[in-house]
Amino acid sequence: MPISMTSVDRQSLSGFMTEGFEVLGLSAEDARIFADALIFSELRFHPGHGQGVRRLRRYQERISQKLVDPRALFEVVKESPALALVDAHNGIGTVAAARAMKLAIEKSKTCGIGQVIVRNSTHYGSSAVHACQAEEAGCIGIAYTNAGPEMAPWGAREGAVGTNPWGIAAPTGLGFPVVMDFALTTAGKGMMLWRSREGRKMPLDWALTPDGEVTDDPDAAMKGALLAIGEYKGYGLAFMTDVLTGVIGGGGFGLTPYADPARLDVSHALTAIDIEWFMPLDTFRARMDEFAGMVKSRKTRPGFSEILLPGEQEARRVARKSADGVPLDDEVLADLLALGRELGVSSRIDVIGPYHEHVL
Amino acid sequence: MPISMTSVDRQSLSGFMTEGFEVLGLSAEDARIFADALIFSELRFHPGHGQGVRRLRRYQERISQKLVDPRALFEVVKESPALALVDAHNGIGTVAAARAMKLAIEKSKTCGIGQVIVRNSTHYGSSAVHACQAEEAGCIGIAYTNAGPEMAPWGAREGAVGTNPWGIAAPTGLGFPVVMDFALTTAGKGMMLWRSREGRKMPLDWALTPDGEVTDDPDAAMKGALLAIGEYKGYGLAFMTDVLTGVIGGGGFGLTPYADPARLDVSHALTAIDIEWFMPLDTFRARMDEFAGMVKSRKTRPGFSEILLPGEQEARRVARKSADGVPLDDEVLADLLALGRELGVSSRIDVIGPYHEHVL
Repeated sequence: MPISMTSVDRQSLSGFMTEGFEVLGLSAEDARIFADALIFSELRFHPGHGQGVRRLRRYQERISQKLVDPRALFEVVKESPALALVDAHNGIGTVAAARAMKLAIEKSKTCGIGQVIVRNSTHYGSSAVHACQAEEAGCIGIAYTNAGPEMAPWGAREGAVGTNPWGIAAPTGLGFPVVMDFALTTAGKGMMLWRSREGRKMPLDWALTPDGEVTDDPDAAMKGALLAIGEYKGYGLAFMTDVLTGVIGGGGFGLTPYADPARLDVSHALTAIDIEWFMPLDTFRARMDEFAGMVKSRKTRPGFSEILLPGEQEARRVARKSADGVPLDDEVLADLLALGRELGVSSRIDVIGPYHEHVL
Repeated sequence: MPISMTSVDRQSLSGFMTEGFEVLGLSAEDARIFADALIFSELRFHPGHGQGVRRLRRYQERISQKLVDPRALFEVVKESPALALVDAHNGIGTVAAARAMKLAIEKSKTCGIGQVIVRNSTHYGSSAVHACQAEEAGCIGIAYTNAGPEMAPWGAREGAVGTNPWGIAAPTGLGFPVVMDFALTTAGKGMMLWRSREGRKMPLDWALTPDGEVTDDPDAAMKGALLAIGEYKGYGLAFMTDVLTGVIGGGGFGLTPYADPARLDVSHALTAIDIEWFMPLDTFRARMDEFAGMVKSRKTRPGFSEILLPGEQEARRVARKSADGVPLDDEVLADLLALGRELGVSSRIDVIGPYHEHVL
């Protein structure tokens, strides 16, 4: 069944979301950070990614149930010129990670590199948004996080480590940054839900049934564990991502993140490498463009018409989607408007019209 | 065809290799570092990995042809308390990376984190040996490098990025460190050569023919490009590994590493995170053991009898192989002994006897 969508004006959507988060208790600055991160994800990803503006409803529920603290202290527990350990006090992960990356960028401007490890946080959203924050500041940005134990270790039928996504972004002279951004599982539950909703099968390497059997049925796999990219390799990097965030940071790891809905105990690491410490930014951009040219000049495989850089497909999706505003799944838009009424949000979302491009 | 192997005494092998490298022009300290790194790899990996003691022959050839400088300057071009940029001046990559990790560890002991980026280097060997150097110093160690353009970007039939291996190691209380260590391709050319030698087919996701077709024939794929783990994901991380080493470090990237045999222009990054900056080392070890217990307590998939930690299989291989010395492929041992005679090495390799375990 095709999904019906509507384009809305981006600025009005940002104002609406920001006001919504302010009503929910966030500071004006944090509300704006969170709203814009969700719109960034809405434009960048397939709607099945699940990190878009629909999260306003999710946070209204979580904040009203006191499961996350919209005014949580961002406590710097310890710091050196290059490193900081932060306790996010069960605040909003996207906001905590944005503040942590800001601190990492500051440290990189004196030491060349800055890293901030955040514990006692919650879902940080898309890794790309945090990596791109550093990219916009003239850095290479690196963001990774642990998560609930949805991934089966290699050989297991039950999850014990997270999808533990990584994002790395770097500037180019091409009009868009290069952005690597992915979970260490072949796919996430959001994409499985999307397939189920569309009535489609899924590839056999996405997930196991609860009995540990491979399956192409998204419904059968929904209660099972997700599979890693590269078998033991993706599992190894996911394990180490837990070590580099929760274990070293004094936070949760393995089975504990997401075990208690009132304290998700997620940990992240945000790293910035200052490009100007090494060379002028324009020199770096020229080197990146040279590298891009090398990759794009390779002959394609049968079935491929061109070779894309990491994040290039997403950059095109953002450009095409946002040409006429932000396309939203009609179900999501209707729920946003209903939520706005519930919360007494006075800002309006300006509707542009039906979205026909079907660039999802 | 099964491979015939012989066990030799480890200490005598180390002395022989060290003397060999000294004859080739390395300093006594560098010769010992290199010899022990190769023996570490010999024990840790399947012989098809190619990073073992057979490299003495390779370096005799490369040094005699003046393709690599055994006495190269290790030049710290720039440094901050947490970061350094090093020019290895076409020295031996394994030695340059070991020195760089030593510097990264020192920096981590004051800043909590230390990173050293090395340019103008050569093949650094196994990522595990460098990551484990930091682990032995009470750190989490991270090592990654770019390499020759053997990996096809997603959608390409020709290589443009390296296998770009990553290693991450962390201490535990279990008697062995956890070590993640892998190339970002599904397999390497060494394993393809091994399959060819054994007359066996290979999995279809290892490499393409030069025409870009999938194949299970290692000989057909030997002139083609290697495939990434996780399709576009492994390609994305490989691309970014080039950015985080060669592009930012002012070294080679993409098509240029290995293009000139007299200057391989490989770049690495070595990172150490000091555990004591965060918590007592024993606390960290206990947390790692708790994490290991979580993973190992998961139910297995059909076909698996237990769940291993990253690097656990290799730790067992080292323990079983080295119980009676270092098992060497007889072809490799014969060539080592011949090379020793050519070089006038006076140290002896003490042979223990035939190796029958067939733990490869």
